[in-house]
Amino acid sequence: MRRIDDLQYKGLKIVQDSDGFCFGVDAVLLANMAKKARSLKTIDLCSGNGIVALLLSGKTDTPKIYALELQKEAASLAKQSVELNGLEGRIDVICDDLKNVENIFERGSFDVVTCNPPYVKNTCAITNDNDALRLARHEIACTLEDVIKAAAYLLKPGGKLFMVHRPERLCDIFCAMREHKIEPKYMQMVHPCASKKPNIVLVEGAYMGGRELKMLEPIYVYDENGNYTKQIDEIYERGCEA
Amino acid sequence: MRRIDDLQYKGLKIVQDSDGFCFGVDAVLLANMAKKARSLKTIDLCSGNGIVALLLSGKTDTPKIYALELQKEAASLAKQSVELNGLEGRIDVICDDLKNVENIFERGSFDVVTCNPPYVKNTCAITNDNDALRLARHEIACTLEDVIKAAAYLLKPGGKLFMVHRPERLCDIFCAMREHKIEPKYMQMVHPCASKKPNIVLVEGAYMGGRELKMLEPIYVYDENGNYTKQIDEIYERGCEA
Repeated sequence: MRRIDDLQYKGLKIVQDSDGFCFGVDAVLLANMAKKARSLKTIDLCSGNGIVALLLSGKTDTPKIYALELQKEAASLAKQSVELNGLEGRIDVICDDLKNVENIFERGSFDVVTCNPPYVKNTCAITNDNDALRLARHEIACTLEDVIKAAAYLLKPGGKLFMVHRPERLCDIFCAMREHKIEPKYMQMVHPCASKKPNIVLVEGAYMGGRELKMLEPIYVYDENGNYTKQIDEIYERGCEA
Repeated sequence: MRRIDDLQYKGLKIVQDSDGFCFGVDAVLLANMAKKARSLKTIDLCSGNGIVALLLSGKTDTPKIYALELQKEAASLAKQSVELNGLEGRIDVICDDLKNVENIFERGSFDVVTCNPPYVKNTCAITNDNDALRLARHEIACTLEDVIKAAAYLLKPGGKLFMVHRPERLCDIFCAMREHKIEPKYMQMVHPCASKKPNIVLVEGAYMGGRELKMLEPIYVYDENGNYTKQIDEIYERGCEA
């Protein structure tokens, strides 16, 4: 069922399918990390219902943002959100395969690439009966390597890739990035709370960049009382509860 | 100046040179991570004054532990500590270059390799006037790649490499490990305290192992009051202050 959710941010709204993949904290953290990069042209890969592109339209001055999504249904939701927010002309939703980027865009034409890719390796693991959810969550239509290869093609030298993923894939991420000349520059772990191990990692890489990885302060989502931390309130740009 | 320090652990003592490199929390965390692996033959590379080998003799039943150290002065201190603790026969200190392991040991003859290697890349960075300290802290005598290559030679299939390093080198570590067929299995970040970014990373890899990296709970050294955390007290096997 389609529904319209208020993003609680600059009046932005998003069209989501409650049977499909709805955006989570990962997308918000990714947009928050990517907003600091100056960009004339940004592309969000595996963009789903367009949440990262929508957030970046509110958080940055970037004049042109592309949202590339393979699934027709998700791309259609993204297009509806763009219209609903009057962002036609600024956000272009393209329904195509990221393995096909060489036929869609010129090499080195982007300052920033963002991606919240499918997390689960498509091995023998349990898959979801709902096909749209399967494609969104599993590396069926594209692998981590496909995503990084596409980003390396799209970025100009010095251009930035921002990616959110599971920390368990960190070795795969780093090895694929270095292989495709995207050098990891910043890494930030996100923990459910301070006493728990991280379950999300944010990575920023620079195409053709030098070797110099830096750590960022960890993000804790909840405090010891189960409330959102100040960090999360700041990322969501919410006022603290009075 | 040589001095004898009490390790406060099973009566173990260590001979250190107060002008040279004295052991730190890194060595203790490394030995703590490596103690869980069953091993008949362990080797500590870049072993300095032998702290990791000494701790492992107390924390494990491993009958044979080698400590390989290039610097004569440090190896001599390690030998003195071995004698002081009556560990001759169980710990063998070898003063040689780890780039020479193929001439010293048989391929695949170890269950466990540990290493607390020099942290600082030998680029144009400030170096210490004291040569022993320079060699201990900078990648002059051996690079990260040399260490991992030596470990891959020494380990039997399934054998474990335990390494402590700076998180800034994580991409270099993961790429070199995978290149030399040591697959990262566990990763643990160590933070000065919960609000600060990690400054130490512990990595466990398995030679010829499958791809399956897991995170471990973070370690915080100090709590918000500047006291050692319970985690650190447990690792040092100290009782909590009454």
